[in-house]
Amino acid sequence: MASAGDAENAVAEPTPPLQPVLEPLRGLLGTWRGEGNGSYPTIEPFRYLEEVRFWHVGKPFLGYEQRTRDASTRLPSHTESGFWRVVPDADRDADAPTPIEMVLAHPSGLTEVSAGELAGRRLTLSSLTIARTPTAKEVTAVERRFVLDDDVLSYEVLMAAVGQPLQLHLTASLQRV
Amino acid sequence: MASAGDAENAVAEPTPPLQPVLEPLRGLLGTWRGEGNGSYPTIEPFRYLEEVRFWHVGKPFLGYEQRTRDASTRLPSHTESGFWRVVPDADRDADAPTPIEMVLAHPSGLTEVSAGELAGRRLTLSSLTIARTPTAKEVTAVERRFVLDDDVLSYEVLMAAVGQPLQLHLTASLQRV
Repeated sequence: MASAGDAENAVAEPTPPLQPVLEPLRGLLGTWRGEGNGSYPTIEPFRYLEEVRFWHVGKPFLGYEQRTRDASTRLPSHTESGFWRVVPDADRDADAPTPIEMVLAHPSGLTEVSAGELAGRRLTLSSLTIARTPTAKEVTAVERRFVLDDDVLSYEVLMAAVGQPLQLHLTASLQRV
Repeated sequence: MASAGDAENAVAEPTPPLQPVLEPLRGLLGTWRGEGNGSYPTIEPFRYLEEVRFWHVGKPFLGYEQRTRDASTRLPSHTESGFWRVVPDADRDADAPTPIEMVLAHPSGLTEVSAGELAGRRLTLSSLTIARTPTAKEVTAVERRFVLDDDVLSYEVLMAAVGQPLQLHLTASLQRV
């Protein structure tokens, strides 16, 4: 029977190589920091500091974690975590957009299942299912538009929530660190 | 305008105190390691090494991340991440069970929205919604039963998937590290 010490050593073992199916997303791997702006009809506009981390463990998905702090108070604000997948398709033309899937959990009591594609430097994901706990606020749709330009990752997030139609909610620009 | 350096410093700032609403879950905070056993009618039984981490940032939720490795090959196996919430209720009797909500993302393309309660040392969560990406396997229900005994966290996970009824899938025992 393995001891807790064995488990520790195992968890610290080196990462296998990136799965070939994830090559189109290789540019996301690493840690990103920067700042963003948020707005919505139901709240005051806000500025935030952000850190995003993408990693892999040699399996066909990327891990994703995002944390923000309020730019004024420096207190923790939003965070979200989940996984990104590339839909395998051996017949896909090398120049064709790459189909992407994403699953996220939000501490506000929401989960987000999205799908979209990576085309050149642009990656767009639209929610298929937003599920929520009984006490969570109602969010009905999220759209995420990323642009990856070497060492700059910028994005827009559009959201439909609490009776409001889909509209711009967040914009941010992050640098690779 | 804040620089990436400011963001780095902000993200590293100390954590505020635990929100009072989370006091019933305080015993989960920290890192846990151990091993578990998995089985299901559609797969070969397997043993795994596991690390689980619960943390907080001074907001009314716990962050949660779990990673496992196959006990034989030591290669990464499952991982999942998300957030745990306590449903606030000022009128609740101090001896009454504490209602809990959980949202998780799985790299297999699933999200899990669950609710349940903490009663003494026992915490049980049942899925309300399992959502999935178009390419994910069908999982229709998950039930998680935890027992927290000071420095030992043990659990059972029951699952209904790929046409099979809800049944035991995972058992594990973890020690606080």
